[in-house]
Amino acid sequence: MSEWEKNLLDIAPYVAGEQPDNDKIIKLNANENPYPPSPAAEKALRELKVGELNKYPDANAMPLMEILAKMHGLTPANVFIGNGSDDVLALSFRAFFNSKKPILYPDITYSFYPVWCDLLKIPYKLCPVDENFRINSEDYYPENGGVVIANPNAPTSITEGKDFIVDILEHNKDCVVIIDEAYVDFGTYSAVELVSKYENLLVTQTFSKSRSLAGMRIGMAFGSEKLISCLRAVKDSYNSYPLDTAALTAACASAEDEVYFRHTVLKVMQTRDETAQTLRGLGFKVMDSATNFLFATHPDYTAEEIFMYLRENGVFVRYFKKPRIDNYLRITVGTDEQMKRLCELLTKLITG
Amino acid sequence: MSEWEKNLLDIAPYVAGEQPDNDKIIKLNANENPYPPSPAAEKALRELKVGELNKYPDANAMPLMEILAKMHGLTPANVFIGNGSDDVLALSFRAFFNSKKPILYPDITYSFYPVWCDLLKIPYKLCPVDENFRINSEDYYPENGGVVIANPNAPTSITEGKDFIVDILEHNKDCVVIIDEAYVDFGTYSAVELVSKYENLLVTQTFSKSRSLAGMRIGMAFGSEKLISCLRAVKDSYNSYPLDTAALTAACASAEDEVYFRHTVLKVMQTRDETAQTLRGLGFKVMDSATNFLFATHPDYTAEEIFMYLRENGVFVRYFKKPRIDNYLRITVGTDEQMKRLCELLTKLITG
Repeated sequence: MSEWEKNLLDIAPYVAGEQPDNDKIIKLNANENPYPPSPAAEKALRELKVGELNKYPDANAMPLMEILAKMHGLTPANVFIGNGSDDVLALSFRAFFNSKKPILYPDITYSFYPVWCDLLKIPYKLCPVDENFRINSEDYYPENGGVVIANPNAPTSITEGKDFIVDILEHNKDCVVIIDEAYVDFGTYSAVELVSKYENLLVTQTFSKSRSLAGMRIGMAFGSEKLISCLRAVKDSYNSYPLDTAALTAACASAEDEVYFRHTVLKVMQTRDETAQTLRGLGFKVMDSATNFLFATHPDYTAEEIFMYLRENGVFVRYFKKPRIDNYLRITVGTDEQMKRLCELLTKLITG
Repeated sequence: MSEWEKNLLDIAPYVAGEQPDNDKIIKLNANENPYPPSPAAEKALRELKVGELNKYPDANAMPLMEILAKMHGLTPANVFIGNGSDDVLALSFRAFFNSKKPILYPDITYSFYPVWCDLLKIPYKLCPVDENFRINSEDYYPENGGVVIANPNAPTSITEGKDFIVDILEHNKDCVVIIDEAYVDFGTYSAVELVSKYENLLVTQTFSKSRSLAGMRIGMAFGSEKLISCLRAVKDSYNSYPLDTAALTAACASAEDEVYFRHTVLKVMQTRDETAQTLRGLGFKVMDSATNFLFATHPDYTAEEIFMYLRENGVFVRYFKKPRIDNYLRITVGTDEQMKRLCELLTKLITG
């Protein structure tokens, strides 16, 4: 090994789900929304002033900050915009978790958290979820360097309510608490309303799931002026212009189309609940989902078997070869037609 | 100060130039290209499949990697794409500069380098440029943790040639050498051809200047497979999808329109050289520019005076209140018409 190679960062990257590029495949493995973005976003992109793309974008995505602030009864000083919620979360870990005490998060949760801790050298301690994958709030009472809770949690799909979040906040006044609400729009309590009460609370969200804009990389955070100004300083020390003008344009139009948003979210929730019922009828144990995916296991077939069987039949779901969840599948909720195909295949496998 | 505030990152962010939002202002302060992006990019964006933006983008921007690799006689394994060259450089600093020895760069150069060093806790040592703002290659011979050279350099606009770069590389075989070529297309030697010879060389470029796509945030790096795979691992540990589908679409179309690219770049160079001549006629000392901006000083007026005078008359240029360059102005090359207005104002100031 040459001398310069010794100073390369040695890191194991996060491995995302397969992204097969084939129209015939039913892709239920990346928690993408099966519906297109709002027609308002399409219209705005069609009218994009391409001739002005020679100019830098608004560094803080101000027009979107203003829309989101108004939506939640906050001010733009309470809103931060980034290049997808991964960018927002990575910058937040950097900005807020500088204690020598470990940060706390569940052992089963979004698999990027330990990756960021490793990258940023943040000590962390995993708090095991219970046998039903529920998070125990008391695990987060001991002294710590920060708390991160995905609510709803991934890949379990389970949500906790307001009392749980308030309990966590009441017992964690000396650290920053991040509530990662990537899936919140699919039917659960959002902690954004608590931002004005708890100065140490940061809530992150994304346009990738409920707004059907995964392809445009739009994430955001809500918090006190103190947290947001610190986050902005870290962003400005790293990459001043994370959101391009096209993404900003699409996001603003999408954010203002409440009707389409509600309509598609409700449709996904309806399809989700119908699919869960069908799967339960086939003997699956399916977690109560507050997200756009189902987390399921079957007593007679291993998750890996089912995963391979579906894959061979052109349906991609997500299988994690990880302790405690290696017999579960994470199945994104697609269109009714896609879920019908999934259920047909599973019926064939199970009832012969 | 509450307990949680003690663990917030304390950092002074990079402060970008003013971005006045007023059509009447002539904006020569952000090194933006005065011409619109390629008509091919416009066409591609008009045809963007908005209905498919519900899907995640290609994580590595593969179609663009392939075009750029072919353009430079490399393979996609030699190309990395990021959210603007700031993103690419920040990730590179993180990936490659993990030595305890200081990295070296000129005292007068892109002002983001010390910001990243502070953020990432990378030790650094500044090597003063000479009285004519030239970089002395011998300053980079001593043992170090890495070398970063902007070529052409900013804000000086000055370039060094192939011999200089090779000299730096021949004397730095034990560290990674980054050549930041943000402005390279405006008429100087590109070190990309050396990537296949020096495994420790990383060359970064951007579509923000010569391709008129600052609004779309597209940056790239060229290097050996070893460097690029390390960079990709760091990216995948931070934010897997930095480039959205619209940016990727615009970038691919722009990269393939060589004719428009050459045409606008040559036009900017011609306007630059004519403006430099006019300014010299007014008594300015103007550095020989290999970029899309001019770096100039006047013996009878302070830079701050001229800056304020131009600002009051609706022309924004960049003034850095920093040691050694606080009597210089950085003036972006705009259209002929914009530069005519600039020169008229300066003529009025100087010749009364």
